[in-house]
Amino acid sequence: MKLNCDLGESYGAWTMGQDEAVMPLIDMANVACGFHAADPVVMRKTVALALKHGVEIGAHPSYHDLAGFGRRSISHSPEEIHALLLYQLGALDGMCRAEGAEIQYVKPHGALNNDMMQDDDLLRTVARALASYRSDLPLMIPATRRHREQRSIIESMGVPVLLEAFADRAYTDEGQLVPRSQPGAVHTDPETIVAQATSFAHEQGVSSHTGQWLDLPADSLCVHGDNEAALQAIVAIREALAKSRP
Amino acid sequence: MKLNCDLGESYGAWTMGQDEAVMPLIDMANVACGFHAADPVVMRKTVALALKHGVEIGAHPSYHDLAGFGRRSISHSPEEIHALLLYQLGALDGMCRAEGAEIQYVKPHGALNNDMMQDDDLLRTVARALASYRSDLPLMIPATRRHREQRSIIESMGVPVLLEAFADRAYTDEGQLVPRSQPGAVHTDPETIVAQATSFAHEQGVSSHTGQWLDLPADSLCVHGDNEAALQAIVAIREALAKSRP
Amino acid sequence: MKLNCDLGESYGAWTMGQDEAVMPLIDMANVACGFHAADPVVMRKTVALALKHGVEIGAHPSYHDLAGFGRRSISHSPEEIHALLLYQLGALDGMCRAEGAEIQYVKPHGALNNDMMQDDDLLRTVARALASYRSDLPLMIPATRRHREQRSIIESMGVPVLLEAFADRAYTDEGQLVPRSQPGAVHTDPETIVAQATSFAHEQGVSSHTGQWLDLPADSLCVHGDNEAALQAIVAIREALAKSRP
Amino acid sequence: MKLNCDLGESYGAWTMGQDEAVMPLIDMANVACGFHAADPVVMRKTVALALKHGVEIGAHPSYHDLAGFGRRSISHSPEEIHALLLYQLGALDGMCRAEGAEIQYVKPHGALNNDMMQDDDLLRTVARALASYRSDLPLMIPATRRHREQRSIIESMGVPVLLEAFADRAYTDEGQLVPRSQPGAVHTDPETIVAQATSFAHEQGVSSHTGQWLDLPADSLCVHGDNEAALQAIVAIREALAKSRP
Repeated sequence: MKLNCDLGESYGAWTMGQDEAVMPLIDMANVACGFHAADPVVMRKTVALALKHGVEIGAHPSYHDLAGFGRRSISHSPEEIHALLLYQLGALDGMCRAEGAEIQYVKPHGALNNDMMQDDDLLRTVARALASYRSDLPLMIPATRRHREQRSIIESMGVPVLLEAFADRAYTDEGQLVPRSQPGAVHTDPETIVAQATSFAHEQGVSSHTGQWLDLPADSLCVHGDNEAALQAIVAIREALAKSRP
Repeated sequence: MKLNCDLGESYGAWTMGQDEAVMPLIDMANVACGFHAADPVVMRKTVALALKHGVEIGAHPSYHDLAGFGRRSISHSPEEIHALLLYQLGALDGMCRAEGAEIQYVKPHGALNNDMMQDDDLLRTVARALASYRSDLPLMIPATRRHREQRSIIESMGVPVLLEAFADRAYTDEGQLVPRSQPGAVHTDPETIVAQATSFAHEQGVSSHTGQWLDLPADSLCVHGDNEAALQAIVAIREALAKSRP
Repeated sequence: MKLNCDLGESYGAWTMGQDEAVMPLIDMANVACGFHAADPVVMRKTVALALKHGVEIGAHPSYHDLAGFGRRSISHSPEEIHALLLYQLGALDGMCRAEGAEIQYVKPHGALNNDMMQDDDLLRTVARALASYRSDLPLMIPATRRHREQRSIIESMGVPVLLEAFADRAYTDEGQLVPRSQPGAVHTDPETIVAQATSFAHEQGVSSHTGQWLDLPADSLCVHGDNEAALQAIVAIREALAKSRP
Repeated sequence: MKLNCDLGESYGAWTMGQDEAVMPLIDMANVACGFHAADPVVMRKTVALALKHGVEIGAHPSYHDLAGFGRRSISHSPEEIHALLLYQLGALDGMCRAEGAEIQYVKPHGALNNDMMQDDDLLRTVARALASYRSDLPLMIPATRRHREQRSIIESMGVPVLLEAFADRAYTDEGQLVPRSQPGAVHTDPETIVAQATSFAHEQGVSSHTGQWLDLPADSLCVHGDNEAALQAIVAIREALAKSRP
């Protein structure tokens, strides 16, 4: 069970996240590509930092919306989605190439991610763009109750799938994340977080916020590095997963 | 003697140039990379059009300045220049990759081009960025009286050089283009344009606006496709060069 | 019956529209404010041109989306909408102020206009922003079958209403514009255009594309200045309205 | 002797500065206008916060360069400078207007400020833009040895002048700030900072880093609110100035 984290989200004079502290603790770095965060200098540093720590580099492409941090839904034609993905994958790969590396997977960011999980046509468009870019580049999507259908859509384009789950977020009975606006959406208790991580790793699922069991297989857990507590949670998850390994 | 032209300079709802008409007439397309012109959709279409006509694709990277069309000088650190070049080369290569192609040379645009021709440190930074991206990617620069020195700087980084000349612009005695603000800077008479093209092709040089001979070897002539007269000039140059071939 | 037209839609090196030719023919100029089109230099020139011809200056604010020309819907909080309107109204008023003038009405652009016509909460947010900016600043909206309800929402904020109609677009039975994707959506026949203009001016309504009468009172007709035929249509409308005046 | 501080420099999801803590301690807020920092929501909040604390609102306009935070010099025509100033002054005034307020002075930011202090033509262009916007709007510039000449240029346009000085920066013998790249450029010792503030307030000048006396009259001291030590320095300056008042 690999740990992935959104990184490289600083921009110009503005710093976000604690990339130096988080990078050694994770396996996969979702690197912003300049459309919701990251200028070229930030991207280049983030790639170098990931390579230094042997962390897989994933592209984290987004709608083009710096002021909205990619969190606002923007209506697009399939042709526009295809092109903006190629642009961002290529730009990040340009940074990788200068270091003798290449991107290893793609995880869409924010509203683009949410929108494609609600709209199979958009998901198909995203998968088609990846397939046109490189045939073996996996698309990482959140594990939901529709994971079989969504996997089938993506794989029909010849694109491998990675499923991610969240250790620090409550799930609805439908296998969606409880919206942040609702109470109990985000777990802050370290024991709960670690238990949920272990559940995904060993039981291939999790209990929803009403106590219903959800079968949700996952290849990777998404973690956050925004503050000291978040960093400690990552360490606790790593330790729990290492101990419990058969 | 190949003909190169700046293309893919539309942006969103704004159209610039006559790419459909020009592409069949040229050998090398300098394709904007989104920093001074071209959104991802425009870039993708331009790449497809170039491939359809068997035209070489060159990256045309710029300072990041849409409102200024990359024509305003912007002070940058070497680190920033390096990163913004990797970003733009990679982004355009992303479009090429989806078509099974790749960029074949790099010609910096506008103020970035002017600045690097005045500042050997900046030229070195540009060449270093290309070398880090791909070892065999040529840098196209305007042929000036300093072409040997500039070639030496670029080649010392392991980067091949392409020299370009202009058939429709008058040259100063120093081998610079006469600034557009001065009378006689731009040739509009087709005979003069064709004669200058032929001179570059067969005499490896041109007469300055005061009549002084300038040795200026060139691998490519830069042509323009802004209007009907410009298109006819390209056709006339092609015909003259074809006829005069030994 | 005043004629209004979207103007000032050039950006940097890209030209759009024929502002010099259109301005003398219209009464009200909807001036882009930099979020979907127009850089500050373009805005300043457009304001000067309007004042020279005694044309009323309206702000034409938009979602922030140059590449999409403000035609893509972007989800926003009411707080964001309020602030982006104040920003754009103020910016254009800054240009006006330097000429001893001020903006005289506001017509939202593109997707923002469409969205507020579908969503009364958004319409209320837009009206609230105008009211906070200046108490007597009219909001121009397309006349639809819901014009009484929409007028009531806007006026309840203390904001005056201007209704606009289109001479060159077919209307559905619901009093909406027939989408451009459908055949017959845009009138190109000068007689049809003039007849529809006259109908709005004298009958306070128009026949839908199925022949059903629509009561649609309008204060202003929206015209376009994209090409020579469009300019001639404006002239024809002006002449027809002048002749038919009681 | 008033205290001024750069505020409103957050952008979208990125936070910069401690505006809530600083605002109660200062007299004049230099508010970013969206070109180097601040989206419309940030601007609106900053204006409301200033008004709540009775702090004067100054426009802090910049070259358009978010990624460079307005610190990179960009070549511009006088026409472009004039228009980008009107745009930003107007935009901020739009926020003020919605609160029944208006901007009270203008202090250019970063590279624009540096450039106009080196180039009298640019200084004249900036002053001309202010004069065209509102006849009584003061321009704040750093006090240097050329303050009489610079005042004369600005006042010849009918624009009032405010001179600012820095309590926490060392001055060269020429009355310029010692560049941050040099040792001793920034004072961190609270006693030194307070002594320099008191010297500007009561002696109308300061000793340079070599000990030479500089006559530098100032209307306002620029303070910073980046960290806890900076906040304490502001408090110490306020107390010292209050005590020493005759």
